[in-house]
Amino acid sequence: MSKDRLIYLPLGGAGEIGMNAYVFGYGPPGKERLILVDMGVTFPDMDGAPGVDLILPDISWLAARVDRLEAIFITHAHEDHIGALALMWPQLGKKKVYARRFTATIGRLKLEEAGLPVDAVVTVEPRPATVTAGPFKVQFVPVSHSIPESSGLIIDTPAGRIVHSGDFKIDRTPVVGEGWDDAMWAGIAAEAPVKVLTCDSTNVFSNHPGRSEATLAEPLAKLISEAPGMFVATTFGSNVARLKTLAQAGRAADRSICVLGRSMKRMLAASEEAGVLNGFPRIVTPEEALEIPRRNLMLLVTGSQGERRAASAALSRGKYLGFEMRQGDSFLFSSRTIPGNERSVIHIWNAFSEMGVTVHDDTDGLYHVSGHANRPDLEHVHRTLLPDMLIPVHGEHRHLTEHVRIATEAGIAGMVATNGMMLNLTGDVPVVAERIETGRVYLDGSVQIGAMDGVVRDRIRMALNGHVLVTVILDEKDQPMGEPWVEIMGLTDRGRGDRLLNETLESDLADWMGRAGRKTLKDDGKMDEEIRKVVRQVTMEEIGKKPEVTVVVSRLIEE
Amino acid sequence: MSKDRLIYLPLGGAGEIGMNAYVFGYGPPGKERLILVDMGVTFPDMDGAPGVDLILPDISWLAARVDRLEAIFITHAHEDHIGALALMWPQLGKKKVYARRFTATIGRLKLEEAGLPVDAVVTVEPRPATVTAGPFKVQFVPVSHSIPESSGLIIDTPAGRIVHSGDFKIDRTPVVGEGWDDAMWAGIAAEAPVKVLTCDSTNVFSNHPGRSEATLAEPLAKLISEAPGMFVATTFGSNVARLKTLAQAGRAADRSICVLGRSMKRMLAASEEAGVLNGFPRIVTPEEALEIPRRNLMLLVTGSQGERRAASAALSRGKYLGFEMRQGDSFLFSSRTIPGNERSVIHIWNAFSEMGVTVHDDTDGLYHVSGHANRPDLEHVHRTLLPDMLIPVHGEHRHLTEHVRIATEAGIAGMVATNGMMLNLTGDVPVVAERIETGRVYLDGSVQIGAMDGVVRDRIRMALNGHVLVTVILDEKDQPMGEPWVEIMGLTDRGRGDRLLNETLESDLADWMGRAGRKTLKDDGKMDEEIRKVVRQVTMEEIGKKPEVTVVVSRLIEE
Repeated sequence: MSKDRLIYLPLGGAGEIGMNAYVFGYGPPGKERLILVDMGVTFPDMDGAPGVDLILPDISWLAARVDRLEAIFITHAHEDHIGALALMWPQLGKKKVYARRFTATIGRLKLEEAGLPVDAVVTVEPRPATVTAGPFKVQFVPVSHSIPESSGLIIDTPAGRIVHSGDFKIDRTPVVGEGWDDAMWAGIAAEAPVKVLTCDSTNVFSNHPGRSEATLAEPLAKLISEAPGMFVATTFGSNVARLKTLAQAGRAADRSICVLGRSMKRMLAASEEAGVLNGFPRIVTPEEALEIPRRNLMLLVTGSQGERRAASAALSRGKYLGFEMRQGDSFLFSSRTIPGNERSVIHIWNAFSEMGVTVHDDTDGLYHVSGHANRPDLEHVHRTLLPDMLIPVHGEHRHLTEHVRIATEAGIAGMVATNGMMLNLTGDVPVVAERIETGRVYLDGSVQIGAMDGVVRDRIRMALNGHVLVTVILDEKDQPMGEPWVEIMGLTDRGRGDRLLNETLESDLADWMGRAGRKTLKDDGKMDEEIRKVVRQVTMEEIGKKPEVTVVVSRLIEE
Repeated sequence: MSKDRLIYLPLGGAGEIGMNAYVFGYGPPGKERLILVDMGVTFPDMDGAPGVDLILPDISWLAARVDRLEAIFITHAHEDHIGALALMWPQLGKKKVYARRFTATIGRLKLEEAGLPVDAVVTVEPRPATVTAGPFKVQFVPVSHSIPESSGLIIDTPAGRIVHSGDFKIDRTPVVGEGWDDAMWAGIAAEAPVKVLTCDSTNVFSNHPGRSEATLAEPLAKLISEAPGMFVATTFGSNVARLKTLAQAGRAADRSICVLGRSMKRMLAASEEAGVLNGFPRIVTPEEALEIPRRNLMLLVTGSQGERRAASAALSRGKYLGFEMRQGDSFLFSSRTIPGNERSVIHIWNAFSEMGVTVHDDTDGLYHVSGHANRPDLEHVHRTLLPDMLIPVHGEHRHLTEHVRIATEAGIAGMVATNGMMLNLTGDVPVVAERIETGRVYLDGSVQIGAMDGVVRDRIRMALNGHVLVTVILDEKDQPMGEPWVEIMGLTDRGRGDRLLNETLESDLADWMGRAGRKTLKDDGKMDEEIRKVVRQVTMEEIGKKPEVTVVVSRLIEE
């Protein structure tokens, strides 16, 4: 009997929504041949990681076993699935990356921009086309989502069939791409029993059945045709189906369509290249658009999450590429606000309100539908595929737990596995095989730093507490030369009374140095420690804060 | 004919939800006698004001005219209405502060804690009791809200009657306090025509009629009685009606009630003192609670917004005062998450999920109702009072605009007036009289700093870009003594290749100083500028970031 086993190891995306990276393996324990599904990023915020550009999964485990990695598969071109491609790929032995046409186009763009060889990305046709990667046979199955050519994966292994749902919804009339096909999915389960379903959990708390992209056409058409002035709509740049619905509604209302924002243009170009953009109305350039009466113009713009540098935010601040919002214009968030982005979105809304612009959002459910399967849809998929095991992915802990709960109710063996939990899926039920150290890596400027390195912790401390710098100079005999010098950043310079805070600190430090013994003055470590103490104590008394302190002790050396 | 005029000037709360502070005035232009309604704070976040403790309105305009200020009125004891009392009161000529009993109790606590005289706060009975303050006659009218004894104000002036709604909802069965009384409000309008209604705008985008606090009793009772283990619920500590509903449901389910969290206990004590807490079940101490079987225990805890230091967050991290959440326990957010707090709340939810705790929130509308009037309720109030003018308050710009829109549809003259816009309300329609410079003041530690002082901007910059400190020492002849010394905070210390970033900076700076001309070395300003330039350029090359730079040039002087 074979001692080979089938393993699953999430390195990102399990216990969070973002930076998806799932490893599957098959072979003798510790020697499994591996594949990686998705290479995603997540986006930092000021609370958790100020100044950081992107957050990636820590893939050191995989990088250390790269000789066992057969191939990489990307399910779709959202940043939380493909965003780390150019950053992680060089660390992963430059293995082949398989994806469908649209996703591959975006992937190649990323590699090209990073100066990496674009032929690493291999375009794969949908099932029945099959990629063989060591013991794995992988097929791409079209699913509906909020980006073209999203895919589930069928991963056939000697231990049985895995279905990895990818990000998906059940949409039988999806505007762009293939609709949900029950017969096809039933066929997949009939062809070979599904041993494991690794399944999107994002919308497990949404109790109503999901709605089709097609339901938006009518309310959007009504809204856009009735708007008196210029109509501006934002959505995720990659939601090409939504852009098409919006653009068609605009055309029907006698409006010319203009697109503002790099990422949106890039997605439309990639859609064109991948041949998924049939029926998209002609787009006018910004220069042409500026000549068109407002009533006959519609702008599609980036920045649905309130991103500072995107077109929406730029328009809310004033003139942007010659365009300016005015009384009587309309602005539509054809999108959902991701938790954490509320304030930025509301900020833009209020800025438009001050300009007299009418703002619409998804509150009434008329102008946006989600790209993820809701609870009844998940249950439908469970029933269709009847897997032995369900491993929830793409969710925070609460989503994963709830997803397991509904699977368990349906008699499916489920288990919550968060990042770093390796499961053995060889038997009838999932068993924890090992716990791997995982975490997050920050892309900060041009370098990758560990989330636990302390760099970001120091930034947060400076932001909360301010920063005081002290320089003291000692002569060859360890005697102070002049008074200590204090610089303050991020703290008020007014202390109690009339005196400046840095002057108070300088004179109190000078006093302390006058009193300090020879032993202290000789000892850099001791000096540093004591000066910090004085600074924190005096600053606390003066302004009620304990700042971060950096001390530089310079000593003149006899030459 | 009198040249006296009636003016309105929001210093905070108009164009934002938070830090309410509204000035009304009557008299000759520029010499109006003034009253202030509310002294609120708003809460900072990491994005906008890291490290700041509280945000207050800039009241310099009023402080400079304090001889014209007659009195201060506080509508209710929420922090966005009373939170700045102890901070602003000393700057406002120590004028009398009028409030109803519960609010006055909280106000006195705040003054006491700040070492200020508690007799500044005068308790006022509800209408018909009347406070005369210069040309103003002011009555407190009980309204329902999410805190005991919230009040609207009737402000009678020689120019006519103003109704200031305060924060309110229409609740005919409010659990604590008096219900909405249509006859009374009709009587107020019949007594004297309402010239101006300054009205809460918070929920103007909620299209359904508001629900009563009483509707929660049944679903809460069901939820709490069916929960298998310990039941823990959080809500705003000041929502005493909710605490009562929760506690009664707990008692009905055979659970003893224990309260954790300072602010909640304080509110319950103040309610007791003000006599608004009839029928509240007996509370057990934490020590007693620890002896009670989980199935018979219910905790009421602070921290509904995910505040790090409150009881909810503490329980989500592990043991707190001897209590520990376990598999089978339940946790309820009987509250709405204020925009901006989503991530903190979700963080707690996920932590509980990891412990096997079942979490409920207000998603289905079963376990929370808002304390503010929804659109149909606002329209009902407009129809009941039939004011000549409506000035929306307590809202972001979008709320104020929408509120004016619905007033205008009902034939009422409305105007959006944001902080600093002084309106003349003497005539039939509001007219902009003047624009006053207003803004925000930060309480930072023990000092108040202007939002525009640059202190917080520097903190944000350090958080985004990191901080590099350079010290150079020059001798009496302006020649460098030793190499420049570089300290780094909030940046990685690894540059390109193997070299440490600070070492690269030090040697590049030494090179630069070797090349620098005498004129540069003599000039501190020039040195500072050039060194910054070198540091930013080298750091950009090494790690792709442009840091904040502080340069300290020390010069030895011949003694």
